Amino acid sequence: MAFPKSVSICDVGTRDGFQAEHDFVPTAAKIEVIDALVAAGLRKLEVTSFVSPRAVPQMADATEVLAGIDKTRGAEFVCLVPNLRGAENAIRAGARAILLFVSASETHNGTNVNRPIAASLDGFRAIMDLALRHGITVHGSISTAFGCPFEGDVPPAQVASVARAMHAMGIGHIALGDTTGMGTPPLVRAAVEAVRDTCPELRLALHFHNTRGLGLVNIVAGLELGITDYEGSVGGLGGCPFAPGATGNVCTEDMVNLMHELGIETGIDLDALCGVARRVETLVGRSLPGQVMRAGPRGRLSPLDCAVRAIG
Amino acid sequence: MAFPKSVSICDVGTRDGFQAEHDFVPTAAKIEVIDALVAAGLRKLEVTSFVSPRAVPQMADATEVLAGIDKTRGAEFVCLVPNLRGAENAIRAGARAILLFVSASETHNGTNVNRPIAASLDGFRAIMDLALRHGITVHGSISTAFGCPFEGDVPPAQVASVARAMHAMGIGHIALGDTTGMGTPPLVRAAVEAVRDTCPELRLALHFHNTRGLGLVNIVAGLELGITDYEGSVGGLGGCPFAPGATGNVCTEDMVNLMHELGIETGIDLDALCGVARRVETLVGRSLPGQVMRAGPRGRLSPLDCAVRAIG
Repeated sequence: MAFPKSVSICDVGTRDGFQAEHDFVPTAAKIEVIDALVAAGLRKLEVTSFVSPRAVPQMADATEVLAGIDKTRGAEFVCLVPNLRGAENAIRAGARAILLFVSASETHNGTNVNRPIAASLDGFRAIMDLALRHGITVHGSISTAFGCPFEGDVPPAQVASVARAMHAMGIGHIALGDTTGMGTPPLVRAAVEAVRDTCPELRLALHFHNTRGLGLVNIVAGLELGITDYEGSVGGLGGCPFAPGATGNVCTEDMVNLMHELGIETGIDLDALCGVARRVETLVGRSLPGQVMRAGPRGRLSPLDCAVRAIG
Repeated sequence: MAFPKSVSICDVGTRDGFQAEHDFVPTAAKIEVIDALVAAGLRKLEVTSFVSPRAVPQMADATEVLAGIDKTRGAEFVCLVPNLRGAENAIRAGARAILLFVSASETHNGTNVNRPIAASLDGFRAIMDLALRHGITVHGSISTAFGCPFEGDVPPAQVASVARAMHAMGIGHIALGDTTGMGTPPLVRAAVEAVRDTCPELRLALHFHNTRGLGLVNIVAGLELGITDYEGSVGGLGGCPFAPGATGNVCTEDMVNLMHELGIETGIDLDALCGVARRVETLVGRSLPGQVMRAGPRGRLSPLDCAVRAIG
C-alpha cells in the first residue's frame, strides 16, 4: 500500500508530557507552548486533563490553561477526562473535545484507574450522554494496545473488542496507545487489522512511546497500513524525567521530519516546531530526547570551517 | 520483498565509537569490551584503526588491542587504515582484515583525508597489492553515501561510481556510511539501487548514524531491499560526547532487538549484549543513547508493585 499523501499530527506534550514533570510548569508557560504549537501549524492538541489535582498536581490548572489559550486559529483542543466529574468540569471550563481512555489489558486498567475494563466502559455511557447534550466531541484512547507491562502480549481481539464497545457508543476516533513502548511492526499490523475488521468505519490514530527506540519504525508500519493520524509530544516530552531518553513519547518534530522526508504533508512548519521544542527544553530545565531540534533538518548544511577531521 | 531470514551485524563501537571519546579508554578496557561483544555472539567487529596517534590519540594502542583480544571464537576483527603505512602497521600487528574508506562527496573527502576522491582511490591500489601478498581481506567503506554535511544531496550515481572503482580493485564487501545521519528511506533505496545496478555482485552493508532519529527506520528500508549486513555501535557510542543523544551510531543492541522482533536471526544474545552496553556506559562515565539496555526487551515484564498510576 502506498503511503498517505498527508497526515494529521496531534501533539500531546502539554498533557502526556508535562504530566510526567516533577516540577510544576507554570500556567503561563503551558499556554505559551500550546499557542506556539498552534502557530507552528499543529491543528490538534491534547492540552490538559481534568483529573483530581491530588492525583496529578501538574494538571491542577486545567481550567486556566483552557481559558488562556488562543482559540482563533481553528485547532482542536482535546481534554482528557477520567470520569463523569472530569467531563463536567471540562465542559464547564469550555472544552469542545474530550478524550476517554481505557486499557486493553485488565491489569493495566486496574493499576491506572482501579477498576475493570467493563466498568470503565460502563462509565463512558453517562459521559457520552452529557457530551451529546452539550454538543461536544468525544475521542477515545486505548492504552497497552500493543503490549502490557504486567501481562505481556495483549491479544489483538481484545483490543478490537474494546474498540468496538467504544465505537458502538458513538466514539468515531480512537487512538491505539503504546503505553510503555512495547509495539513492534508485526504487533502494530495485527492490532490495526483486528480493529479494522471489527470496526471498518472507525478512524484510528497511533500513539507510540520510544521506550525501545522503535517509535518511528512503528509509525512507518502505520503509514504502510494507510493510517493518517499520529500522536507525539514536542521535544519527546514524557516518561520519567529521571531516566533520560528512556521512555518518552515519540518526538513530534522528529516525526514531522520523517513525514516530510517521505513526501507526506503535515501542514506543520518544522523549523518553528523545533523552536518550540528548544523553548520547552528551557522550560523543563533538562535535555529532551528530540534529535531534529539539535541537528536540524538534513537540508541545513554545515559551513566548511566546522569540519571535524573524523578519519573515517 | 520479504525481509531476510538472518542478518550479519558488525559492531564498530570500539573504533568509530571510542574514537569520539575525549578521555583515553584504557587498552585493557577496549580488549574487555571486544571480548565481551564476541562472547555475546558478534562475529564481525571494527576493532581499531591504524592511524597517526597524533591525529587520533584514542587509537594509539591499535597494536596492543589487536594483540590482546581473544581470537579463538571465529570472529572477524577489522582494522581501519587510512593509507599504505597504516596498512603496513596493521599487517605487522597481525591484522587479518582491513578497511579502506573514502567519501562519496569531494568536500567531505577533502576535510577528512585532505585529498580528492580520485587520489584516495589511487592510493588503494598499493594497499590492495600489499593485502594480496599477505593474504588478508580488504573491506571498503563509502562515507556520506546518503548526504554530505557540506554539499547536501549526493547523487546516487556518484556513490555507485566510487563503489564500482573499489569493486574493480577486488573489494567484495562495501559499507555505505551515513556519516552525519542524513539518510532517509527514499535516499537509502536510491543509493542501494544505483550501486546494485552498477555492481550486482558487490556485497553491501549499511552503516547509519541516528542523528535525526532515523537510524532504525533506515535499517527497515535496507531490510526491505534485502540487505543482510548492518553496522552499529554498542550502547550507541559515537558522535560528539558533548551533545548527548545527538549524533551517535545506530545502537547495536537496539538494532538487534528490532531484528529479533521482526523474526530475523542475528546469532546474538541480546541480554548479554545489553550487559556489555551497560559496562561501556560505566567505562565512558556518561549516559549513552541506547534504549533497550535500560528498558529491557519487551518480554521483560514489570512486577505489579512497580505500577505507576499514570491516568491515561
